[in-house]
Amino acid sequence: MDKTDNSHDFTYTDWTLVETQLKPNQIQHRETVFTIGNGYLGTRGSFEEGSTRAVPATFIHGVYDNVPLVYTELANCPDWLPLIVTVDGERFRTERGEILSYERQLDLLRGILRRKVRWRSPGGKTIDLCFERFASLADEHVLGLRCQLTPVDFDGLIEIQGSISGYPENQGFNHWELIDQGKTNRGAWLQLQTRNTRINLGMAVGMTVLGADAPVQVSSPPGYPTLSTVFQASLGQTVTVDKFVTVFTSRDVDNPVKEANEKLAQLPDYEALVDAHVQAWAQAWDKSDILIEGDTKAQLAVRYNIFQLLISAPEHDEKVSIPAKTLSGFGYRGHVFWDTEIFILPFFIYTQPKLARNLLTYRYLTLNGARRKASHYGYKGAMYAWESAETGDEVTPRWLPPNDFYGEDIRIWCRDREIHISADIAYAVWYYWKATDNDEWMRDCGAEILLDTAVFWGSRVEYNTKHERYEIRGVIGADEYHEIADNNAFTNRMVQWHLEKALFVYDWLRHTYPDRFNTLQQKLQLSAGRISRWQDIINNIWIPYDPSTGLVEQSEGFFKLEDIDLAEYEPRNRSIQMILSIEETNKRQVLKQPDVLMLLYLMRQSQEFPYTPETVEKNWDYYAPRTDITYGSSLGPAIHAILASDLGKSKEAYEHFMQAALVDIEDVRGNAHEGIHGASAGGVWQAVVLGFGGVQFAEHQPTATPQLPPGWKRLKFKLHWRGEWHEIDLRPTPQDTMTLPDIRGVIFDLDGVLTDTAEYHYLGWQKLADEEGLPFNREANEDLRGVSRRESLLKIVGKKQYSEKQLQEMMDRKNRYYVDFIQTMTPGDLLPGTIALLDELKQAGIKIALGSASKNAQTVLEKLGIADRFDVVADGYSVQQPKPAPDLFLFAAQHLGLKPEQCVVVEDAAAGIEAALAAGMYAIGLGPSERVGSAHVVLPNLAGVHWTELRDKLSNDQ
Amino acid sequence: MDKTDNSHDFTYTDWTLVETQLKPNQIQHRETVFTIGNGYLGTRGSFEEGSTRAVPATFIHGVYDNVPLVYTELANCPDWLPLIVTVDGERFRTERGEILSYERQLDLLRGILRRKVRWRSPGGKTIDLCFERFASLADEHVLGLRCQLTPVDFDGLIEIQGSISGYPENQGFNHWELIDQGKTNRGAWLQLQTRNTRINLGMAVGMTVLGADAPVQVSSPPGYPTLSTVFQASLGQTVTVDKFVTVFTSRDVDNPVKEANEKLAQLPDYEALVDAHVQAWAQAWDKSDILIEGDTKAQLAVRYNIFQLLISAPEHDEKVSIPAKTLSGFGYRGHVFWDTEIFILPFFIYTQPKLARNLLTYRYLTLNGARRKASHYGYKGAMYAWESAETGDEVTPRWLPPNDFYGEDIRIWCRDREIHISADIAYAVWYYWKATDNDEWMRDCGAEILLDTAVFWGSRVEYNTKHERYEIRGVIGADEYHEIADNNAFTNRMVQWHLEKALFVYDWLRHTYPDRFNTLQQKLQLSAGRISRWQDIINNIWIPYDPSTGLVEQSEGFFKLEDIDLAEYEPRNRSIQMILSIEETNKRQVLKQPDVLMLLYLMRQSQEFPYTPETVEKNWDYYAPRTDITYGSSLGPAIHAILASDLGKSKEAYEHFMQAALVDIEDVRGNAHEGIHGASAGGVWQAVVLGFGGVQFAEHQPTATPQLPPGWKRLKFKLHWRGEWHEIDLRPTPQDTMTLPDIRGVIFDLDGVLTDTAEYHYLGWQKLADEEGLPFNREANEDLRGVSRRESLLKIVGKKQYSEKQLQEMMDRKNRYYVDFIQTMTPGDLLPGTIALLDELKQAGIKIALGSASKNAQTVLEKLGIADRFDVVADGYSVQQPKPAPDLFLFAAQHLGLKPEQCVVVEDAAAGIEAALAAGMYAIGLGPSERVGSAHVVLPNLAGVHWTELRDKLSNDQ
Repeated sequence: MDKTDNSHDFTYTDWTLVETQLKPNQIQHRETVFTIGNGYLGTRGSFEEGSTRAVPATFIHGVYDNVPLVYTELANCPDWLPLIVTVDGERFRTERGEILSYERQLDLLRGILRRKVRWRSPGGKTIDLCFERFASLADEHVLGLRCQLTPVDFDGLIEIQGSISGYPENQGFNHWELIDQGKTNRGAWLQLQTRNTRINLGMAVGMTVLGADAPVQVSSPPGYPTLSTVFQASLGQTVTVDKFVTVFTSRDVDNPVKEANEKLAQLPDYEALVDAHVQAWAQAWDKSDILIEGDTKAQLAVRYNIFQLLISAPEHDEKVSIPAKTLSGFGYRGHVFWDTEIFILPFFIYTQPKLARNLLTYRYLTLNGARRKASHYGYKGAMYAWESAETGDEVTPRWLPPNDFYGEDIRIWCRDREIHISADIAYAVWYYWKATDNDEWMRDCGAEILLDTAVFWGSRVEYNTKHERYEIRGVIGADEYHEIADNNAFTNRMVQWHLEKALFVYDWLRHTYPDRFNTLQQKLQLSAGRISRWQDIINNIWIPYDPSTGLVEQSEGFFKLEDIDLAEYEPRNRSIQMILSIEETNKRQVLKQPDVLMLLYLMRQSQEFPYTPETVEKNWDYYAPRTDITYGSSLGPAIHAILASDLGKSKEAYEHFMQAALVDIEDVRGNAHEGIHGASAGGVWQAVVLGFGGVQFAEHQPTATPQLPPGWKRLKFKLHWRGEWHEIDLRPTPQDTMTLPDIRGVIFDLDGVLTDTAEYHYLGWQKLADEEGLPFNREANEDLRGVSRRESLLKIVGKKQYSEKQLQEMMDRKNRYYVDFIQTMTPGDLLPGTIALLDELKQAGIKIALGSASKNAQTVLEKLGIADRFDVVADGYSVQQPKPAPDLFLFAAQHLGLKPEQCVVVEDAAAGIEAALAAGMYAIGLGPSERVGSAHVVLPNLAGVHWTELRDKLSNDQ
Repeated sequence: MDKTDNSHDFTYTDWTLVETQLKPNQIQHRETVFTIGNGYLGTRGSFEEGSTRAVPATFIHGVYDNVPLVYTELANCPDWLPLIVTVDGERFRTERGEILSYERQLDLLRGILRRKVRWRSPGGKTIDLCFERFASLADEHVLGLRCQLTPVDFDGLIEIQGSISGYPENQGFNHWELIDQGKTNRGAWLQLQTRNTRINLGMAVGMTVLGADAPVQVSSPPGYPTLSTVFQASLGQTVTVDKFVTVFTSRDVDNPVKEANEKLAQLPDYEALVDAHVQAWAQAWDKSDILIEGDTKAQLAVRYNIFQLLISAPEHDEKVSIPAKTLSGFGYRGHVFWDTEIFILPFFIYTQPKLARNLLTYRYLTLNGARRKASHYGYKGAMYAWESAETGDEVTPRWLPPNDFYGEDIRIWCRDREIHISADIAYAVWYYWKATDNDEWMRDCGAEILLDTAVFWGSRVEYNTKHERYEIRGVIGADEYHEIADNNAFTNRMVQWHLEKALFVYDWLRHTYPDRFNTLQQKLQLSAGRISRWQDIINNIWIPYDPSTGLVEQSEGFFKLEDIDLAEYEPRNRSIQMILSIEETNKRQVLKQPDVLMLLYLMRQSQEFPYTPETVEKNWDYYAPRTDITYGSSLGPAIHAILASDLGKSKEAYEHFMQAALVDIEDVRGNAHEGIHGASAGGVWQAVVLGFGGVQFAEHQPTATPQLPPGWKRLKFKLHWRGEWHEIDLRPTPQDTMTLPDIRGVIFDLDGVLTDTAEYHYLGWQKLADEEGLPFNREANEDLRGVSRRESLLKIVGKKQYSEKQLQEMMDRKNRYYVDFIQTMTPGDLLPGTIALLDELKQAGIKIALGSASKNAQTVLEKLGIADRFDVVADGYSVQQPKPAPDLFLFAAQHLGLKPEQCVVVEDAAAGIEAALAAGMYAIGLGPSERVGSAHVVLPNLAGVHWTELRDKLSNDQ
């Protein structure tokens, strides 16, 4: 089996992500993937019973605490998951005993995470365990966890210990001091306080048992309140243990412990809590769902990304924003970047504008931090932090410390130079306002953001007297591979754009809300001089654009840097910067992420300079090949997907889109264990709605000019625009559908395709030939590929004469040998890539058949453990005429209920390809061209082969 | 009462440090003070039940783990102390309920820490709790803890929970990953592993109950194995709970958990463990004790410092050394400095040379780290780390990060520049060898240290062609206030000395062990050129010494720096560097610690250049006044004590000595909460033995030329020199004793001395006078100071005639008023400084009497809460003749069993001073000279007055 493939133990359905296998070395990645939350907190998908290498975490919005080097971080909060099950003295852990079956499901529709495990203890007791958990979307302070236990083959004593752990850690560091703990008649509680920021947290826990007479005991080791129960369990009888947790902090209420205890005391039963929670999710999905038909994997992935955005958006808190890794991991320490405003925010602006407003209000409330930063650097106005946390002060680490005793520290320059963040925030403010017409918010919050950051720009630009132009020197643009750039086109144009909008807002405010205007004018010292200078900067700032070529130069002198051919570095699994070093990368024309293209994308929304379809095309051709899109920044692929789609490069667009959509589920970049890629998730929404959907916002309503990816049969979503909902329901143009073969079924040959039974056949024939004294060897065996048993025998006996009875006996004999051999087969005999491909087909709704001449096909499929994946098995008993006659494949298609032209045959034998073509089907040949060259598509084998790629190849072949 | 005094809740006895009061704001300081250990581990004196602000810690030698910025630190190990006592549902914590009595004792003789608390629960139940703990010196893997509980006024249910906590933290960081845990029939166990260094730790815990029928239950929340028991306790019946803990790491054994469980299973009972432990301590003290007679406080303090050194010295491990803060706190992260070789090592060299050898072997085993450091800096040979840990690589932090968002990092230069450490280690190697004649160790380890560091010096010195001399530029000397110095005298001379010894050892090895010599010659590339260069450096290195003045210039240009008068900065409670800033301090002639004087001290041992009594005197006069001895470095006072003693400045010597000796107990520098000052403790031993004892090591035996501090009647200790023990038993010279008054008792007046009852007398007299129409006021009251009741009345009535009966009635009446007033007195009415002084007298063995004319003296003493501190009370009933007659004081002296000349009277009234002088006693007058000027010593009051100072003043007066 293909061990390097990450995807093959997931099954995708429209609403549910299903993990079918437990892989200990992917524990941390899966913890990220199965994060749940409710906009107040996020909890990683760690196991209730704990596990080696687990990194459990619960993050609550705004609960930051100090830490050296990176200043502040989201403090991992007490772990509410621990539930220890002990079966007759044997403690359940997945690392011990035997996992007989395993399935974990994230139900996106209901926001519930479930896990079913059949476990056999080291002592031989088998039990079914079913865990379920949710963070209530109906009441953000409530968490529920259920465990159902059913003994499969024993009666015995089961002990359950449910705890809250006051020892959570941020990579070893515990931000909490234990203040107090205690018992109530409903359970136990814990009071903690962050070490430096002095945030108080109260958490209460209760537990009930259904289906057994089991009183719950409370014990209270320091920092580890524990509820426990012991009961006699009987074979086949299910006992249900429900654990309830409530949590408050001093950011929410005055007395968190009291509130947690009161809330716990008032909770209804588990089912009622789930009902309210599911109802809240229904409302959320009603606004924010995207329906995709014809591509189950894309459907699930898009919903997954939306789910992760929804659970990280604060509904009742304007003092926080969504960190780069949401509330799902330790990466970037819970700091907030431009990721929120540029990548994530559009989703909220157009589906849940109230949440978008909360996120932008965070920027308003942290203006003073931005002012302190400006002042520290010697500028005026408000200079937003590249990385921001509770105060808005700059929290980007200054140094990356070395790993060894004598290494040098690496200076990180983003805090000083990546100044475009201030314009990015202005951009988000502007489009929030455009989409909502929320003039009150613009008056009270947005205008001050926009204007005071404009004041900053007024102090930051420099006038170049030689060239008589404004410049901005010494920055890092969107592309972080160039650590110090002058006149970065992205930055300069965004500043110009920002100042244009600032002047507009200045005039608007003066006319519409003169009182507020006067207040701000005084507060921000918006003198006539400052305003006129903004206009002057707009007129005279240099944007390095060459109309003759249509190219925008990323930064001054960029085109003079050493060029690079990224293909020369393939294959690779790390970034170009890691390969070349920071210094060498600085010297080359290689981008971490779109920069000029990012600018063009941002200007696309309102078709502003330098955006035109032509500039996009010219600059795409220049910059896309020079962008480290695979391992550079996760911010890139969604943007490339949109622009590629605009340029009609639908295959490339879809690839980039899926790269973004699966970045977390399939750990495309290898770093998903650090947390959800929030910006990528937001980019996925933009790629679907603004890219494939082609949505533009006219004054009155959104319009769509769709470019649906191949195979998408429907794309439907809602948009909120200026107070009204607009439903967009798109289907492919006829042109789209015509270009694609309408493939509904795949028929696999067995030997040499799914497994190597050819070897066992050979061994059977060889044994027979040896017994009969017939000349035979491996070379001769090659001629038997895809040939029926009888014909094979005839080839072996050659000219030697045998009676029909003898022939029959010999066929039977060889078959006995063969059947003996194949009894030893296991799933390990599957060829690489098969399972993954079968899964993908199932997810994509493609039917699957076997088309093999073998009379032992059914046995082999069972031995291989894949029998249940086949809708139809056509084998040596199914038809009379063997391959190359088309009969066997036609038989399979008929039983699948498909037309021949809707089927693809995967074959490794020349006769098989011939049969497929004769049947009027698509053929995929595995092996050398000399053998299978007449197939539509030729591949060496199925390792690493994905259905979408196969489909593309078949359509290209047309 | 004097709240700023730290000492007054300690009582000092010869062998036991007694804390008599629980002060919540000194919790962390006291945790350091009451550290116990056994050379394998150290455990801070945290409470078993936990407490707010507690910083519990157990450090095991060599258990380091990685940490950013400071590279590595001693990992706080699982806490073995937790023992939670719950009385009828109320959990014992000192912060709750009421502490009715409290005493904590560190028994240095037996190495046992005890605490007795009488606690009244919030619900009103009173219980006596007696805790006791020890880290076995007989078996370093065994820890014992006993808790005895006696209900005082109730029968009730008591629950005990004894745990080991797998969540220890280094200032928030938990270095441990939980590997496994479990139960045995003796208790429970825990297995952890350090995150980066992958050190495995196994800890097992057992618990037994005596005096109650109480089975022990085991529960096992993740990382928190807990043994618990519940029993019915009866009034007056004592129940004893014994907790046993065993601990091993993978540094000691292959399977720590197995060893811990086996060790636990084999343990005898608590008493037997204590017996073996006490016996081991008896052996340790037999070698290392110092006996001081005549100064209980110094006696206790010296033993305390020795105790702290003994418990931090590894007996079975040569791969570790003693960190700057021993194993008692988080300061300096468990890193090893020159503190060990220069300050601590002499104690071990001369009393337990095997331990000294272990510590030096650590340096041998970390030579490769020193070589890596040399190589990194571009030098040859071995350059020892300024801060060293498990590998010997440099672990001094490079940066001190700022505390705020925009602050700059502070570069720490010690790793680069404080290079004298390599010579310091050579110095220790040399004197270990001299003291032990251990040629084998010198051959196998010492020579390689000495020679390869000499190789380093050969590459580090620079030749100045202009001056034709070798120089060492860009260093930090012993004095760290000067961050970059050229030709630091301390460094240059130590290097010269080092090379001298290196040449000696080179020759010695060549002649004595030619094989080893050849090996080292090849390994270290000891070419003829290198050796001849060493001699050249010895001959030509510049030592900035001016024979005409006798002054050594600390570094080139030091005398040209701005001068400073430290008196101008008094009073202060922080260092000069903190007052002036790093930069400004660099520019001035102010020292953090002895530098030239340190060099003179080190050269004193063998009377080498530039040491002479004259250079000491001249340089003392120059540098001592410029040294920030109070708040600079804790390494200074002991060295100043020795040199001051040599110079005959016995008072100054004793003051510096006590500053060092009490640095931890009385938190002299305000930072003892970070851990024991190990170097100071070693310095204290040197000050007593080499300073006051005047020990010099001749070839055949040590000789002593004592200079005992005032009051010391005997100084006795043992020294191990070249394989033999030498007992040194010193007594003061007759000259010493003659100069001191032999004071054995202090007699206090009451009113105006211990308390302000004068005010209550005044109120009584005023009330009487008003009733009788007699003229009286505060001014007239001044004349009544120290005057009997009758005489006072006569002064008030003046010429007015009253019968004796009337007078008697008036005296009775006034007395009734007065007695009414004094009923309201409390300990709060004590005058500042009284309690502290009474404590010091008790500790110093001085008897105490009251000598007051008041007939209510006994009542007043009781109201003030000090009645039990007085050996004799002489009051208005004792004698006929009032002051100024001597009768009352003579009465007191007689009942104290003392001669008048052995007594001091403390008085605030002229009549009292007159009486004291008439009695032939010493008199201390409190108040203005006009009133008490005839006393031997006049003070404003007793606030901040220390007995040693008073005694000195009285002796100066002679």
